[in-house]
Amino acid sequence: MNDFAKSALLPNGLRDILPLDAEYEADVVSRVTAHFAAQGYDRVKPPLIEFEDTLLDGAGAAMVKQCFRVMDPVTQRMMALRADMTPQVARIARTRLAGMPRPLRLSYAGQVLRVKGSQLRPERQFGQAGIELIGADCPEADAEVAILAAEALVALGVPGVSVDLSLPTLVPAILAGLDVADESLRSSLDHKDAAAVLALGGVAAPLLSALLKAAGPAERALDILNGLDLPAQAAAERDRLAKVVALIEHAAPDVTLTIDPVENRGFEYHTGISFTLFAQNISGELGRGGRYLAGGNEPATGATLFLDTVLAALPGPVTAKRTFVPAGAPRALAQALRAQGWITVAGLAPVADNAAEAKRLGCGHVLLADGIKSVE
Amino acid sequence: MNDFAKSALLPNGLRDILPLDAEYEADVVSRVTAHFAAQGYDRVKPPLIEFEDTLLDGAGAAMVKQCFRVMDPVTQRMMALRADMTPQVARIARTRLAGMPRPLRLSYAGQVLRVKGSQLRPERQFGQAGIELIGADCPEADAEVAILAAEALVALGVPGVSVDLSLPTLVPAILAGLDVADESLRSSLDHKDAAAVLALGGVAAPLLSALLKAAGPAERALDILNGLDLPAQAAAERDRLAKVVALIEHAAPDVTLTIDPVENRGFEYHTGISFTLFAQNISGELGRGGRYLAGGNEPATGATLFLDTVLAALPGPVTAKRTFVPAGAPRALAQALRAQGWITVAGLAPVADNAAEAKRLGCGHVLLADGIKSVE
Repeated sequence: MNDFAKSALLPNGLRDILPLDAEYEADVVSRVTAHFAAQGYDRVKPPLIEFEDTLLDGAGAAMVKQCFRVMDPVTQRMMALRADMTPQVARIARTRLAGMPRPLRLSYAGQVLRVKGSQLRPERQFGQAGIELIGADCPEADAEVAILAAEALVALGVPGVSVDLSLPTLVPAILAGLDVADESLRSSLDHKDAAAVLALGGVAAPLLSALLKAAGPAERALDILNGLDLPAQAAAERDRLAKVVALIEHAAPDVTLTIDPVENRGFEYHTGISFTLFAQNISGELGRGGRYLAGGNEPATGATLFLDTVLAALPGPVTAKRTFVPAGAPRALAQALRAQGWITVAGLAPVADNAAEAKRLGCGHVLLADGIKSVE
Repeated sequence: MNDFAKSALLPNGLRDILPLDAEYEADVVSRVTAHFAAQGYDRVKPPLIEFEDTLLDGAGAAMVKQCFRVMDPVTQRMMALRADMTPQVARIARTRLAGMPRPLRLSYAGQVLRVKGSQLRPERQFGQAGIELIGADCPEADAEVAILAAEALVALGVPGVSVDLSLPTLVPAILAGLDVADESLRSSLDHKDAAAVLALGGVAAPLLSALLKAAGPAERALDILNGLDLPAQAAAERDRLAKVVALIEHAAPDVTLTIDPVENRGFEYHTGISFTLFAQNISGELGRGGRYLAGGNEPATGATLFLDTVLAALPGPVTAKRTFVPAGAPRALAQALRAQGWITVAGLAPVADNAAEAKRLGCGHVLLADGIKSVE
C-alpha cells in the first residue's frame, strides 16, 4: 500500500461522502426538516458532546454502551458524544423550554456517532432527522408523528413506504401478575420462535402464540387481536392501537401499515405505541419512533429518520447543468447564467481550446462569444 | 440549583441552539453552500472523527493540541475529532479524488469540536462552511476564493464586509539570509510593537518598521510596499499581492480591502497570500483562508466561514406565518395552507375556544369555518 492509499483509510464504519452525494444528502435533510417545520415542529440544535451524566440520563440510558467518552479538560468531568438525538431534545424540552406551552413540537437534524456499528447498520456515524411531540398523551399524537415521518419519506420520493407498528408494553401487560415472565420467553418472542413460546409461555402460551401469528398487515392483525380475550390493561393498549391505525389510514392511505404485536427490540426506552419505517426493496429501517417519557413523567412521542438508509432508498442526485466560463469573460455574464440555474466553472487563465478545457473539467457546456454551446 | 436547572448545564463553550435560531443557522448554511455550488465547488462530507495520524498529518498538524482523542475499540488505534475541516478536504483531494482534473473545487459544511475555546472564540463547537481550490498556484486562484467567500457574506446580508489580506511568507522572505530572525522579533511583529521591532530588527529594522506602518487600507498599503527596496523573493510576493488586490477590487468593488503585511498568527500552515474576513461592528473574524500545500506538494488555497460569527453579524430569523388548525379540520385544507407558505399547528383534540388555543400555542392566526383569522 502506498502512502496515498494508506492516508485514505478511515476507521471502519466511517466514510467520506463525495460529490455529488454530499450535496444530495444535505438537500434531503433540508427537505425533511422543511416538511417538519411546515407542521409547526421548531428546530433545535443540541451540541455533539455533553456531560456524560446529562446525556445518558433518562431516555439516554439506553445508549450508554454506544457513546464515545472524552475528558473535559476545563471541568475534569467526563463528556460523551451523542449516539442518538432524542434524549438531547427531551432534555431541552424539560429544561430550557420548560416554560413553553404544551404540546411542544420540536425537530432536529444532525450527526450521531456510535462506538460500534451493528450488523444491520455498520455505519458508526450517520445523520438523524426527526421530530418530538412533547406533552401530549393521546392517540392523535401517536398518529401525528407516524404520519409526519411516513409522509416525509413519501414526499422525498421513497417508494413503497410502510409503517410497522408495535406495542412494546403489550406483552408485559399480558404477563403482569402471571408467573411466566422470564428472559428466555422474552428472547423467544423476539426471535419469533413459536415452538419455544409455546413451551415457555405457561398459562399465557395460547395468547402469546396468537400474538405471534397476528403479525402482518394491520387490518388482519387487528382482527386477530380483537378476537383475543386480553387482560384489561392489554385490551386498552390494543384499542388504542386500533385507534392509531384508523387515524394513520385516514391521513395517509398510500402508506402500508403492518403490526407486529410482540416486537420489542430497539424500543428500550419506549412506553407505548412505537413504529419502524421501511421502504420497498430496502433492507434495514429508514426510521423509527414511538412513545416515551421526556423526563420527569412528561408524555412524549417522536420519530427519527436514519439518513443513510433513507438515501439508499432514493434514486440519487441529478447532475446540474455545468458550463465552463473562460478566463476574462465578463463577470456579469457568469452571474446571469447562475441566476438561470447554471453552475459556472471559471477558467483561471486563458487556454487554447475552451471546449476541450470544459470537457476536461467535467462541464457539459462552454460559454463562447456567441453563447453557451454543448461540448458533448 | 434544582434538578432541572442542573441538567440544563452544558460544558463551557457548548450550547443548545433553540427555535428559531437553529433553523436560521441551517438556512444560512444552505444559502452559503448553494452560493459555493453555483460556482462549481462540489460538496464533500468527511466524517467527524478519523484516525489521529491521518487527521493530524500535513496541514492538520497545526490542530494537534485542539483535538479530542478517543480510542477506536475496533482497531485499538487512537482517533481524533476534527477541529478544522480543511485538512480533511485536502486529504480527500489527494486520495479519493486524486484522479479528478485540476483545479479541483470542493466545498464543505459541518461542525468542528475543539478541546478549548479561545478568548476571541469561547465556543468549543461551531459550524464551518468553506471552499478549497486545489491544484492552482496563480493569483487568480487566490483572488477567486477571497472573492467567493466575501461575496457569500455579502449575499447573506452581512453589512460592511472587509477582507484583510496578509502575507505570512513576507517577513521570512525579508529575513532570509539575514542574521536577525529570532522568536522575540516574531513576537514583536505579531504584537505590532514598533519599538521592539526597531530594537530587535537589526539590519532589517527599517524595512520591518515600514511594513508595520503599511498596515491599513489596501491602496495605501500597496503604495508604501511599492516604495520599499525589498529582496527579490519578498518583492515577488508583494507584486503578487498587488495583482490579487486588483482582481478582488475589480470583481467585488463593494468589499473593503485592507492589508496587514506582517500578520502571521492563525496562519500556521499557510504558504502564501492569506486573508481574514470581517464585518462592520462585529468583533471577531467571520472567516479566514489562504494558500497552503494540500498534501505532497500540491498548491491549494481555500476559505472557511465561521458560522457562529457569521450569524452574529446577521439580523436574525424572520418568523413565519403560523396558524392553528383545530382538530377535525379537513387535512386537505391544512395542506393547501402549507403550500401557500403557512406553518400549520394541528389541534390534537377539540377545544372550547380555538382562537384562545391558537394564542396559547404561539400562533398568530387560527383557521375557522370562514377562513383564517388573526388572533393578535
